[in-house]
Amino acid sequence: MEQDDLESYLHEQIPLSAAMGVSVHSVTEESVTLAAPLAPNINHKSTVFGGSASALSILAAWSTLHVRLLRAGLPSEIVIQSNTMDYERPMRGEFVATGVIGAAADWPGFLKMLERRKRARIEIEARLTCEGEAVGAFRGRFVAFLREERDGAQRY
Amino acid sequence: MEQDDLESYLHEQIPLSAAMGVSVHSVTEESVTLAAPLAPNINHKSTVFGGSASALSILAAWSTLHVRLLRAGLPSEIVIQSNTMDYERPMRGEFVATGVIGAAADWPGFLKMLERRKRARIEIEARLTCEGEAVGAFRGRFVAFLREERDGAQRY
Repeated sequence: MEQDDLESYLHEQIPLSAAMGVSVHSVTEESVTLAAPLAPNINHKSTVFGGSASALSILAAWSTLHVRLLRAGLPSEIVIQSNTMDYERPMRGEFVATGVIGAAADWPGFLKMLERRKRARIEIEARLTCEGEAVGAFRGRFVAFLREERDGAQRY
Repeated sequence: MEQDDLESYLHEQIPLSAAMGVSVHSVTEESVTLAAPLAPNINHKSTVFGGSASALSILAAWSTLHVRLLRAGLPSEIVIQSNTMDYERPMRGEFVATGVIGAAADWPGFLKMLERRKRARIEIEARLTCEGEAVGAFRGRFVAFLREERDGAQRY
C-alpha cells in the first residue's frame, strides 16, 4: 500500500483523522509512521491534547498491523480491545507515532493462528516523538479477523 | 461551573472536542458527563473510532477533576500522566462518558496533599455507555498543580 493510499483511506474512513490533520510519514516493511500538527490538536496549555496523542498512536498501531497483514497475504478486519498510554513529556509541535510489533509479540505464531482459527490477537506498540524526542508510549491489544474473500485486488 | 460554560471552554481550548461534537450532558456534585455523536467519530466499520472513545473518556475524567477542584476552592492545572482503556463493545450511536473518582482514590488525602505540597496525583475513571449499555472503561492518572493565584473570580 502506498503512503497516499493509506492517508486517503484514513481520512475517508475515519474522519477524525482528517480533522486532526494526520499525514502518513512513511510505510516500511516493518511499520507505519504517522504525524499530526499541533494546531488542530492543541489543548488549553498550548501542548498536544492527550486524546490526540492516544488517537494518533492507535492509528499508527492499527495501520502497522493492517499493512503487515496485507503484505503477508492475510487481509483482516482489525479491532482494538484495550490499550495503555504513557504521556511522558508535553508536545509543543508536530507529533509523530510509529507502530512497532514489540519483541514480546510472536508474529509468526500470530500469523499461524490467524490462518488456522481465522482470528488471532496481538499486542502492537506505538512510540510517540516530538522534535526528535521520545514523548510517549502506547501498547494496544488488537484482534484480527481473517477476511473470507481474498481476491488479491482488494487492498483494504 | 455551568454546563454551557464548560462546553464553550472545551470547544475553545481543545478544538478537537468541537470537531468531535462533544457536548456536556450534565455537571453534578460528583461528576461530569460528556457525549458525542457517531458521525464525526465514525470508523471504517461504522462504529466509534477507538481514538474518539479514548478522547471523550479523557475529557470526562479531566472535566470531573477540574470541576471538583474548583468546588473545593483549589483551582489547579491538571495534566494526564497515563491511562488504560478497555473497549468492551462496539458503539453504533451517540456515546457517553461519565467521570468517576473511584473507590480506590483517596479524595480527602488528595486534597490535603494538594494544599500542602501544591501538587498531588489521583486516579480518575470514566465509564463509557452507548444506548444505555456499558461499552468501555477508562482509568487515568492525573497530576494537579495548585494555582498560585486564587482570586475567586477565576473560573477556569
